[in-house]
Amino acid sequence: MLAEVITVGDELLLGQTVDTNSAWMGEILASRGIALNRITSISDQAEEIVAALNEARKRVDLILITGGLGPTRDDITKHTLADYFAMELRMNEDVLKRISAWFHGRGLPMLPMNKAQAMLPDGCTVLPNPRGTAMGMWFEASQDNRPQVIISMPGVPYEMKGLVEEEVLPRILSKWELPTRFHRTVLTQGIGESYLSKIVNEWEENLARQDVSIAYLPAPGQVRVRLSAVSMDSEEAQRRVNTELNEFLNLAGEHVVAETDISIAEALVELLTQRGETLSTAESCTGGAMAAAITSVAGSSAVFKGAAVAYANAVKIHALGVDAADIERDGAVSESVVTAMAEGARERMGTTYALAASGIAGPGGGTPDKPVGTIWIALATAEGTRARCLKLGRHRGRNVQRTVLECLAWVLRTARSQNKD
Amino acid sequence: MLAEVITVGDELLLGQTVDTNSAWMGEILASRGIALNRITSISDQAEEIVAALNEARKRVDLILITGGLGPTRDDITKHTLADYFAMELRMNEDVLKRISAWFHGRGLPMLPMNKAQAMLPDGCTVLPNPRGTAMGMWFEASQDNRPQVIISMPGVPYEMKGLVEEEVLPRILSKWELPTRFHRTVLTQGIGESYLSKIVNEWEENLARQDVSIAYLPAPGQVRVRLSAVSMDSEEAQRRVNTELNEFLNLAGEHVVAETDISIAEALVELLTQRGETLSTAESCTGGAMAAAITSVAGSSAVFKGAAVAYANAVKIHALGVDAADIERDGAVSESVVTAMAEGARERMGTTYALAASGIAGPGGGTPDKPVGTIWIALATAEGTRARCLKLGRHRGRNVQRTVLECLAWVLRTARSQNKD
Repeated sequence: MLAEVITVGDELLLGQTVDTNSAWMGEILASRGIALNRITSISDQAEEIVAALNEARKRVDLILITGGLGPTRDDITKHTLADYFAMELRMNEDVLKRISAWFHGRGLPMLPMNKAQAMLPDGCTVLPNPRGTAMGMWFEASQDNRPQVIISMPGVPYEMKGLVEEEVLPRILSKWELPTRFHRTVLTQGIGESYLSKIVNEWEENLARQDVSIAYLPAPGQVRVRLSAVSMDSEEAQRRVNTELNEFLNLAGEHVVAETDISIAEALVELLTQRGETLSTAESCTGGAMAAAITSVAGSSAVFKGAAVAYANAVKIHALGVDAADIERDGAVSESVVTAMAEGARERMGTTYALAASGIAGPGGGTPDKPVGTIWIALATAEGTRARCLKLGRHRGRNVQRTVLECLAWVLRTARSQNKD
Repeated sequence: MLAEVITVGDELLLGQTVDTNSAWMGEILASRGIALNRITSISDQAEEIVAALNEARKRVDLILITGGLGPTRDDITKHTLADYFAMELRMNEDVLKRISAWFHGRGLPMLPMNKAQAMLPDGCTVLPNPRGTAMGMWFEASQDNRPQVIISMPGVPYEMKGLVEEEVLPRILSKWELPTRFHRTVLTQGIGESYLSKIVNEWEENLARQDVSIAYLPAPGQVRVRLSAVSMDSEEAQRRVNTELNEFLNLAGEHVVAETDISIAEALVELLTQRGETLSTAESCTGGAMAAAITSVAGSSAVFKGAAVAYANAVKIHALGVDAADIERDGAVSESVVTAMAEGARERMGTTYALAASGIAGPGGGTPDKPVGTIWIALATAEGTRARCLKLGRHRGRNVQRTVLECLAWVLRTARSQNKD
């Protein structure tokens, strides 16, 4: 089955906002066997919305529209769709209660323009949006006797995602009988896409014959690998994918850090929780990004005790017990200092593991000896402390991100390799 | 003048790649007075490319196409355009030399499929691409006697950007005489889009008469506001925008945290650097995200000394000097504890300001007294310490993000309100 996405908003055309909604919808729809045929981004103008909708309806029978549902004057999608489908805007008392409760819960006054968001086209199905004040709308129509569905959702990504998962997808799946697409995603770290592909080359060449498709989804420092199969028989698709995935796991070995579609931080929190172990960090160049990555995981308080973000050398000395003489002699970006940082954190916070990072994230601060991208990392455990030097690039944000991944994967592999007695 | 962008690639429709090219082109074209009318993403299929191109040519006279120029089988944009414009693919010897040099410089062997990238449509203007092996192509055509330009570029963002800046824009600007668009963006924090719009309502109603347009660009906890004007006389456009922006700044008052298009963290680092002041943080529920936000700014080491991420209570006590009796009596999420955390950080790291946050980020951990989203924040300065309680939502990531913004804006406003003697 084919679908199209229409995103509405001047900010998309002016380049003030990158459209991430379409890719997200494309991915989740593909996982249910619905292929996106086209994505169209248009401005907040009624004639543009009507034109794009008419064109899309000639090509496909399912159309998802995002954007233009806010309370301000420039948001016209709802009015345009009501006119388009010859419906009246009527005050929806249930929705009005929802919106009032939303404002009440936040202790905010409700303005007339917020109240107007409960005015909805009288012939559509309202899709409740508990995350905001703009509801989703589900319109049914037909074209050349084919039933069609046109869905309008707010453009705020987390509101749109909630609506798709909770309201839109279940309704689509009950309306149309679709083949299921079964997929599994694993996470690899520390190996580039082309090298990984080379390791599994022979196996990959045979995949198509098994009717299993593979996608490499690279991000700095990690590659997610997804295998999928489509079938009307969901168990059969599942069997095919699982068989091939086991083969992949054998070939990729320890490059795989998680066997499900979770982040390295999630895999780490899960593993340490199971093992009853704990972690702390001592961060200079990563500036708290390791701690932030770990604590972004719900439940991380069971394993994460804390971090000392020691940007200034004085903080390295006082908060972590680094020897001032080491800093003087070797510099803050050095094996001796990063080792002392990890040991200081482990001892002071009393954790099973402690990670440390000290480096030159850039863009300034490099020297001939220690160019931008030189980053020392250390891992302290009960068995002792190891340190390694990463040589990364010139981009500050990417250097931090790659260091965080490298460090978290290091603990993950270390914890995994230990048998708990 | 109007233009359209067509992005070609199955990966866009499957959601494996977010289309960032379109927003980048939209922004740079807007700055030259060229408005994007539509962005269309389609799959790597000849009939899709031809259909999208024919539709776009009915609407606008300048069309930028990215993607589908790689060396592999699935890349068909070049062949499709040659057929479309009834041109022959011919070996371009200059381009062949360029491509050979590209491989030679990298010590890589040149495959037949790479050599084929020098086969180019004989009637187009070749736009040299020094960053890769796929050249840009400039086609001239006409529709209803209007001259049209259709440009094809590779989809790799940094190759496309180089081509736009060095080849495409200069040619466009010499072909058409265009008005300029002047715009300025300011950052507001702590006020929702609808409340902000209400404050400036009367002024906003008058904007259209001044031929200045406004865009609200909301993100959790902050709203960017952009004013823009288009004119053949760039100074005149600038004057109109500046006049209206001054009026907006008066009305929006202290909701404005930055008068240029930068993040709150960037504005904060800039201000504290100017004032020669320093900052530290003591973080529980934000888990290092405050420190990570500040240190993501290049040059932040001049103002940021460090953070104590005190997830465990023992760390609050030992690293920040919080009184165990306070935690016992009031709980870790309390005015007394967050105040002690801020003061402990300020004293131990010796900074002008110290921020602290302790709360229930969720999704678990709430109680009837302190539901999820209850977050205490404190700011310690030489004049004393203030604490406030935020009542946020149920979403962990957003709670952290909003707390970080609230805290950084707090320091920013506090530092700004102080006259330095």
